[in-house]
Formats: sequence, structure tokens, C-alpha cells
Amino acid sequence: MTTQELVAQIRKKKSFLCIGLDVDLDKIPAHLLKEEDPIFAFNKAIIDATQHLCVAYKPNTAFYEAYGLKGWKSLEKTIYYLNENYPEIFTIADAKRGDIGNTSTMYAKAFFEDLAFDSVTVAPYMGKDSVEPFLAFENKHTIMLALTSNEGAFDFQTKKVGNREFYKTVLETSKNWKNSTNLMYVVGATKATYFTEIRKIVPNSFLLVPGVGAQGGNLKDVCKYGLSENVGLLINSSRGIIYASNEVDFAEKAAEKAKELQQEMEAFL
Amino acid sequence: MTTQELVAQIRKKKSFLCIGLDVDLDKIPAHLLKEEDPIFAFNKAIIDATQHLCVAYKPNTAFYEAYGLKGWKSLEKTIYYLNENYPEIFTIADAKRGDIGNTSTMYAKAFFEDLAFDSVTVAPYMGKDSVEPFLAFENKHTIMLALTSNEGAFDFQTKKVGNREFYKTVLETSKNWKNSTNLMYVVGATKATYFTEIRKIVPNSFLLVPGVGAQGGNLKDVCKYGLSENVGLLINSSRGIIYASNEVDFAEKAAEKAKELQQEMEAFL
Repeated sequence: MTTQELVAQIRKKKSFLCIGLDVDLDKIPAHLLKEEDPIFAFNKAIIDATQHLCVAYKPNTAFYEAYGLKGWKSLEKTIYYLNENYPEIFTIADAKRGDIGNTSTMYAKAFFEDLAFDSVTVAPYMGKDSVEPFLAFENKHTIMLALTSNEGAFDFQTKKVGNREFYKTVLETSKNWKNSTNLMYVVGATKATYFTEIRKIVPNSFLLVPGVGAQGGNLKDVCKYGLSENVGLLINSSRGIIYASNEVDFAEKAAEKAKELQQEMEAFL
Repeated sequence: MTTQELVAQIRKKKSFLCIGLDVDLDKIPAHLLKEEDPIFAFNKAIIDATQHLCVAYKPNTAFYEAYGLKGWKSLEKTIYYLNENYPEIFTIADAKRGDIGNTSTMYAKAFFEDLAFDSVTVAPYMGKDSVEPFLAFENKHTIMLALTSNEGAFDFQTKKVGNREFYKTVLETSKNWKNSTNLMYVVGATKATYFTEIRKIVPNSFLLVPGVGAQGGNLKDVCKYGLSENVGLLINSSRGIIYASNEVDFAEKAAEKAKELQQEMEAFL
């Protein structure tokens, strides 16, 4: 998917909502546990109920790997279902991968080719040759961690390198990598005022913003400081939407929560 | 496995060799492609031929994920085979994972419980609460990236934070994390003189050292500067051993290469 197609979808749906499919068997409605593949059954119901309110879905691979082979099968079925039924939707494998060159290529193939995701999240620590193999895929997007929303973000990301914070060095450096136009960045919503600083470095890049809702971020501030000409934001909510109810009405309740966020977003577009 | 058991195995086998099981279907002997599971068949033959010469095996998950469900099945079969037949061998899931707290716990469960690896590699960028969930598992080891052997290591890892390189800040900071005695570190072998600096910060920690062989590191220098009282080194070789031949004699040739490294190592113990 091209960035232009993503922006067009945002304009059409008046939403830049991404829904995180972080499925935990301990948290889904009990009646689904009878299904052959409860995780896929849950995802399918959530997707069908919310697809008109969001522009992206983001399964975090940890939740699938935790169930071994079965989990990978559920992930496969979910991405195939999305690509077949809602091809206009932007898909994100939240995998936070990164390795040396030829190994990163293997990860890129796994997520871009085998699973046919539109994008994958990556970690920056190993630098240029660990990220460029992902950037080489046309019309695929690589979403690199910049400033995360967890407490540990202050351990390294905000440490001063020379006269500025490390995450700014990461952002600035990545702009010089080959095919850097295929880069997007993860920026946590708990520090909305940082968006002003980030927009000075990457004024037009898309930012994937977790941390609205369960992690405590504020949508209004993120929009105020983060929106770009081309929208440039994907706001993720996971638990606040998918676990709105764990009764038989879970999908309906998820849609209500998604609708609330979509309507808040519409006001900023 | 405890660190003491790992050290005892090293003393007994006179080897601190780790063999990287980075299996690429394009590189394995053609006759194996007829097998039901060529990757597992390859791994099994390599393991049976080399297990007396090494103390650890390290499959890099990228190579398995690239083959989707089949790849995960091969990974499962490989770790089950190792745990059943050679339980004294230290196993490393080279996965370079890392996420916010509850999500890191999912990864830890995937690798430590579901797959029953002894250890997993993690990335440090997200800080304390992304790594501590791994450290919480008793007698399991978390091997954090510190200084990698690729070119991109110079993008961020060696940048000055205050008056010292970033990787040193990473090492120093991690010592204060809960259960930090369960930490080991990835230190690339292409910069052997750095080991002196690293040993000042983590004098006794185990270091997993890739980059001997294909990536150009020098075993002698690594041992000179990196060995600790408790040995403290696991030297990894992947391609140099497993692809020593791609004929029917591949396992035998792999054993020859492993034997060469084991004998070099014996001289340093």
C-alpha cells in the first residue's frame, strides 16, 4: 500500500485509528473458547464490527508467539482474512524486529512476503544495515521505534547524545538511510509535547502512536502537536477497544469504543 | 540451566563454542530437500555430529519465521530434539525481542516456557521494563544486545552519551535491573579490543560473541581480552560450520570445522 492510499483512506473514513489485536485467551469472552480457533474467531468479529471506523490493524506478534504454532496459525488467518476482505486497510505486524543485514532480510520476507503485511515495526539499536533490508521492499513500510510510551523509554531514549536526546539522533540518522521514505516511527503518546520536537526532525513522516487509552495518552494533545499536512498520525488503541466487554456483545462494544475515538479524530481532520 | 552447569559443561568439553543454526533452504545439501522437514533433518544431522564439540546451539528465529508455519514447526522440533537428547546443552533463541512489560512477558513465555529454551536474546532500546519480564524467569538467561558486530553498530552503539559510548551506558544501566544476574550480553567479535572496556563494567558476565569466522572476528584476541575467571564467553559460529560442505558429507565437514574451533579454544582454558 502506498502512503497516498493510506491518506486517502483516512480522509474517506475520517479516522486515523489503528486497532491493536493483542489477543489474550484469558481476556476474551468465554463463549469463544469453544471455537476451533478462538483467537481468529475473536479477531474476525472485532474486525467485521470495526473496519469502517479504523484504517489499520496491528497484531502484536508476542501475543501469537506465546501460543506457539497455534498462535502463528491464528496470526496467518487474521492477516489473510484482512487482506482478502478489507484490502484497503493498512496492516501492521508489531514485531519490533532487527538483526544484521541478511537476517533482517529474512524477517522482512516473513512479514512482507509470506504474511503480506503492509508494514512491520523494527528496533533501531543495530543501526542502518539492520533496518535498510526492510526499507528495500516497495510499497511496504517500516515503522521504527523512536520514543516509546513505557517507563523504560527514559533509560536510553531520552539520554543526551551530544546536546540532544538519543531518540532525536535516531530520527535524524535514519533520514539518511536508503529508501528512508518508507520509514514511519513509533512515538508514544504519554509525552505529547515531544511531538513538537519530533515534527521539527520528521515533519511529514507518519507516526504510529500507542499509549492512547490504557497507557494514558491524550488524543487532543497528540493531534495538536503531531498532525502534519498529510495527517501523519496513526493512533493505536488495543485493550480499550478489544476488551470493552467480555460478554457476547464484545464486538458491538468494541465498535462503540472505536466510534468514540473516530468521532474525536474527525474533529481534528 | 544454571550458569554453574554451563561452566561445568565448558570445563568438561573444553569448549565454549556455540553453533548458530541459521538454516537457509537455498544453502543446505540438495538431497535433504526430499525430506518431510528438510530444516529439521539438517539441524538434527548437524547436532548429532557436533554436540560433543560445542556447549550451545543458537537458532536465529528469523530463518524459521521466513518459512511461516512450517518454519516454526522446524524450530519447535529442533528445540524439542535438543532438550530430549542433549539436555546438558545450553540453548539460545536468537530472537532479539523487546516490548513493553506485559508484552515482553508474552515473548518470555513463548521462548522460556512454550519452547523451553535456556535463553533468549533481547534488544535494549525500550529499557528496563522491556527486559525485566525476561529476567524474572529462574534459571533462564536473557542475552541483551550490547555491542554488535555489524557496520550499523557505529550508528548508535558507539555514540557518546556524556563522556562514554552508548553501549557502556547500556551495560552499566542494566546491572541495576531486578534479577540482573540472569543477564548475559551480545558483544561482537570484530572489535576485540573493546572487550577490555567491557570487562571493566561486567567482569564476570557471560558474553555471547558472534562474528568469529564469516563476520571476520579473531578468536585469539577475543579470548585474550574477553575471558573471565568463569570463562564468561560463548563464541558463536554459524555459516563457517553448518555450511562447510553442501554435499552428503555436510555433517562430517561441520564437525571438522567445529573440532578446529574447539581445539583452538581448549588452548585458552
